[in-house]
Amino acid sequence: MAMPTLPDVDDVRKAAARLYGKAVMTPLLSSPQIDAQLSARVLIKAECLQRTGSFKFRGAYNALAQLDPAKRRAGVVAYSSGNHAQGVAAAAQLLGMPATIVMPADAPAIKVANTRFYGAEIVAYDRYRESREDIAQRIASERGAEILPPYDDTRVIAGQGTIGLEIGEEAKRLDVTIDMLIAPCSGGGLVTGCALGLSSTQSHAAIYAAEPEQLDDLRRSLAAGKRVANDPSARSICDALLAPTPGEITFALARRLLAGSIAVSDDEVRQAMATAFSAYKLVLEPGGAAAFAAILSGKLPVAGKTVAIVASGGNVDPAVFTAALG
Amino acid sequence: MAMPTLPDVDDVRKAAARLYGKAVMTPLLSSPQIDAQLSARVLIKAECLQRTGSFKFRGAYNALAQLDPAKRRAGVVAYSSGNHAQGVAAAAQLLGMPATIVMPADAPAIKVANTRFYGAEIVAYDRYRESREDIAQRIASERGAEILPPYDDTRVIAGQGTIGLEIGEEAKRLDVTIDMLIAPCSGGGLVTGCALGLSSTQSHAAIYAAEPEQLDDLRRSLAAGKRVANDPSARSICDALLAPTPGEITFALARRLLAGSIAVSDDEVRQAMATAFSAYKLVLEPGGAAAFAAILSGKLPVAGKTVAIVASGGNVDPAVFTAALG
Repeated sequence: MAMPTLPDVDDVRKAAARLYGKAVMTPLLSSPQIDAQLSARVLIKAECLQRTGSFKFRGAYNALAQLDPAKRRAGVVAYSSGNHAQGVAAAAQLLGMPATIVMPADAPAIKVANTRFYGAEIVAYDRYRESREDIAQRIASERGAEILPPYDDTRVIAGQGTIGLEIGEEAKRLDVTIDMLIAPCSGGGLVTGCALGLSSTQSHAAIYAAEPEQLDDLRRSLAAGKRVANDPSARSICDALLAPTPGEITFALARRLLAGSIAVSDDEVRQAMATAFSAYKLVLEPGGAAAFAAILSGKLPVAGKTVAIVASGGNVDPAVFTAALG
Repeated sequence: MAMPTLPDVDDVRKAAARLYGKAVMTPLLSSPQIDAQLSARVLIKAECLQRTGSFKFRGAYNALAQLDPAKRRAGVVAYSSGNHAQGVAAAAQLLGMPATIVMPADAPAIKVANTRFYGAEIVAYDRYRESREDIAQRIASERGAEILPPYDDTRVIAGQGTIGLEIGEEAKRLDVTIDMLIAPCSGGGLVTGCALGLSSTQSHAAIYAAEPEQLDDLRRSLAAGKRVANDPSARSICDALLAPTPGEITFALARRLLAGSIAVSDDEVRQAMATAFSAYKLVLEPGGAAAFAAILSGKLPVAGKTVAIVASGGNVDPAVFTAALG
């Protein structure tokens, strides 16, 4: 199979036009306390405030808005640990399309409830025994529906990339130069999209992914020069960052655009959630705090730099959040 | 003593010009889940994302920025349960002024720590036995410093009013008419300022205060037609909303501009904090959630209306927040 054409910065600009007035233009927040602690200027892109509580709405809407009327009527099928589910469901609802979401049986309750709220049909599966791709493929074939992959899709990557575009434009307004951008990484759609989007205005910024320890398939794939998988037995508090390997498209982009990937522990993620609570007044889910954890832990040194952090989502059950604060 | 001149909408517009580029233009957030639950369009002004974690920076900066150089050198003295303390300290620091803050000994730890972070000197007092006004007056006399009251000050009210101005302008961009605005109320600077600011674009909106049960001095004062005080033994989880009476200026404004005041219980406030966590991904302190509690509890019916809620602050200790989620 030939390599699909890679998305570029123009695809991100077109996505921004489609998303205008649909997605929330999320704020870029600062804390003088955190800046003093890290001797850096840290700008938090509060994507937890996005429609559906995570960045996933952007990619989903950008993809579905490009379908023709017949395809829209046939509907969309997606598989997701939760945030892509809500993003697809909300985008489909806005566009008047039916949506079916294949979700792991152990997805956080809030993500399941919200996906239902947006009118989607939910099909549960066992994350560790069944193939979500196979289940989605079967449903899509039966219905003639479009499958919308969570990350390895040019339209999805371009949609997520509007975050990088917005960060770059806000940085221009603030008259600052972004030295580094760090984004959480599961399959890589967010971080590679952000790299494309930010390149529009901040071409010298170094782009890093943040992954859970033992689920750092992108870090190891970049080192190996080829896509490698995570150990299926690996676990993490970051329920949104459990993809088994980088995508084909996202890995090709990552090799060109990324400076590296940082693996963060569950404890580092909990500390980042607690710090985002006190310093930024934001509710971050574990995966949403991974990029902040990469710098807060000191694993990625940032002294003297201006650093953009994508706080990618806030869909977290109260018990998990409370444990992070405790 | 003659009644001071009341601030008007032009004072709010001038405050907005002073605050431009200094205060965060906080977002106005939505949740389709909450809108469905209340059969209303609810717009949350996320002022917990303001510099210092509450709206208080606006009024403090607007007041201090009007002092002449000699007054600035002599510094500022303020008394506050915590949020005004941080607002004054941060505004003074930005303007290169010394600041002394008289704080209750039982103020939340995060508010004390952050006030210190902004370079202020802190003087502790017993909330239930000592007069913070007397202590502040003594210090100000010794130093020739300006006293900045937390609410009963034309400049402070005008600064807080920029929130109402921003809500009105954002509503125009969204092409919606605001039917009601509800803001938390301690001494009344926020809610009366918002009434002035919102009147610039939304002259027919009904403005309500939200107060803690048993600390509903504004509600009872409006009913009595004169300023009445709270029982000194009354307690509330809303540590930011404990002022003993409405101010002289704020009460005069409230009689002219407000439709009423709603008293909310501690449990209703905790429920509002938990709902803001899940629906908006915002960290609200108890007092910051009082206006949301007024509508979420059903005490103020909002079905069919477009309602702006001021979520005024997020400076809350983890234990208090965790208890609200539990």
